[in-house]
Amino acid sequence: VNETPVIAVVDAGAGLGQPVAHRAMQMAIRKATEYGAGFVTIRNSNHFGIAGYYAMMALAHDCIGFALTNATPKVVPTFGKNATLGTNPIAVAAPAGKERAFVLDMATSGVSIGKLEIADQWDQPIPVGWAIDKDGKPYTDPHRAIEDFKRNLGGGLLPLGGEGELFSGYKGYGLALWVDIFSGVLAGAGFATSAFPPFGDQAPHANVGHFLGAWRVDCFRPVDEFKETMDRWRQLLRNAPMVEGQDRIYIPGEKEFIAAEQNLRDGIPLSAKVVHRLRQIANEWRIEYDLE
Amino acid sequence: VNETPVIAVVDAGAGLGQPVAHRAMQMAIRKATEYGAGFVTIRNSNHFGIAGYYAMMALAHDCIGFALTNATPKVVPTFGKNATLGTNPIAVAAPAGKERAFVLDMATSGVSIGKLEIADQWDQPIPVGWAIDKDGKPYTDPHRAIEDFKRNLGGGLLPLGGEGELFSGYKGYGLALWVDIFSGVLAGAGFATSAFPPFGDQAPHANVGHFLGAWRVDCFRPVDEFKETMDRWRQLLRNAPMVEGQDRIYIPGEKEFIAAEQNLRDGIPLSAKVVHRLRQIANEWRIEYDLE
Repeated sequence: VNETPVIAVVDAGAGLGQPVAHRAMQMAIRKATEYGAGFVTIRNSNHFGIAGYYAMMALAHDCIGFALTNATPKVVPTFGKNATLGTNPIAVAAPAGKERAFVLDMATSGVSIGKLEIADQWDQPIPVGWAIDKDGKPYTDPHRAIEDFKRNLGGGLLPLGGEGELFSGYKGYGLALWVDIFSGVLAGAGFATSAFPPFGDQAPHANVGHFLGAWRVDCFRPVDEFKETMDRWRQLLRNAPMVEGQDRIYIPGEKEFIAAEQNLRDGIPLSAKVVHRLRQIANEWRIEYDLE
Repeated sequence: VNETPVIAVVDAGAGLGQPVAHRAMQMAIRKATEYGAGFVTIRNSNHFGIAGYYAMMALAHDCIGFALTNATPKVVPTFGKNATLGTNPIAVAAPAGKERAFVLDMATSGVSIGKLEIADQWDQPIPVGWAIDKDGKPYTDPHRAIEDFKRNLGGGLLPLGGEGELFSGYKGYGLALWVDIFSGVLAGAGFATSAFPPFGDQAPHANVGHFLGAWRVDCFRPVDEFKETMDRWRQLLRNAPMVEGQDRIYIPGEKEFIAAEQNLRDGIPLSAKVVHRLRQIANEWRIEYDLE
């Protein structure tokens, strides 16, 4: 839509989020490499997948990556009882030396929909403080929560920090609003409930917005020095005293890197429900499968 | 220390944080006005006061303001039991039209030290989930918590989301780490426990770091259009359905703007302890006072 040396605004033409966000992040990295920082907003887009993926694209260029997106309304505002905001994630990736990179990729709600889906698949109750129903009462049944969300019956996930003010749920809510301003208002995309209108023949298409950015590390300090300091920073945290019963202080992204390595070695654990559903799909489409 | 068109690194010379952060933010705004975005990191600094103040400096220039800082270690990592990170706040300010500006200014811990000090002044117990002691047990006595923190006896505030993983305390912890990377590692300042070493004659001086930034709104879309959309965005949130017993959905900064207006009109409410302490100080220094 328009472009300056450091900033660009892209229209995704109501297409898939992934390819346009990938190209936009390449653009932000190019701008960062040339000018020190680069930011690209995207309007008129759809779900773009994993926010951390785009942030991590910056790592190979010795840049810090940054990605925000708004999304289907699933989260209630503090004191509200209807899903008004997306889980609006924040992703930041910073390179390290010998240690693994720092990769923060977090929904600004207490939990993501994914956690409810997992509870649903394993038939586990969900704790009070994750989600409320249309009357503001806590959901404990994940099946009911997911069904109600799908059918837009009201209620939603609680922001990070939980309900009301006691544990500062307004902070998670505030972060979700910030992400909505950058991804929606600033990008000229939809915002709050207008980013992703309810499905239906008459409904206007989605107008999700994204905000992608990169900073070139060596405009701040030499890359080697930065990476070496990241390593020392990480070691300091790893060596911090732990509460009883814990054996490791993690850094964002570390659990996922470890799980990826484990799964590559041992395979991916699947719940009985997922295996059953995969068998069904394979039978339906007459595909051979081997899940043992 | 060094400067490129979009980025600068400033050394505060171990002086007060406020004046250098004020000048650095003016620099970031100048860069944003000229190039679309500007970022200034500060190393070798001290406490800089209110993060939101610097972010709000951008508003008058039709820019979005951004401020991060690390701080005295007061917060435990997820699974940790010693204060390793500061309350590392995130501040974002975005201009609106007829509505009040959006001003997010939040500690990434569940609560700030200020809330414990208020509980201390009003003699109120603190809820389980705000802070843990050196054994990982919850503090409920604010006097004990504040005394222990002052004397570096271990323990600390819990990150936003609380203890462990159930309510995603690792997200608040992750945000605090992000702020520490940008303010500390990237700026070449101290980080984690090294930002603010314990007081003492032999101790090295503080080396707090800040990260200040600004984006020029009209590089993304026309300012009037942005502000008008901010107004509609705000109205949409104000009109979202509320849970029973609540009468308003707030936006970050709104409560503070309202309180400031009230206090300018009605005066500032003080606790009996604060009044008593002010009388003591006035007597000590033979200053006349009138607190009625």
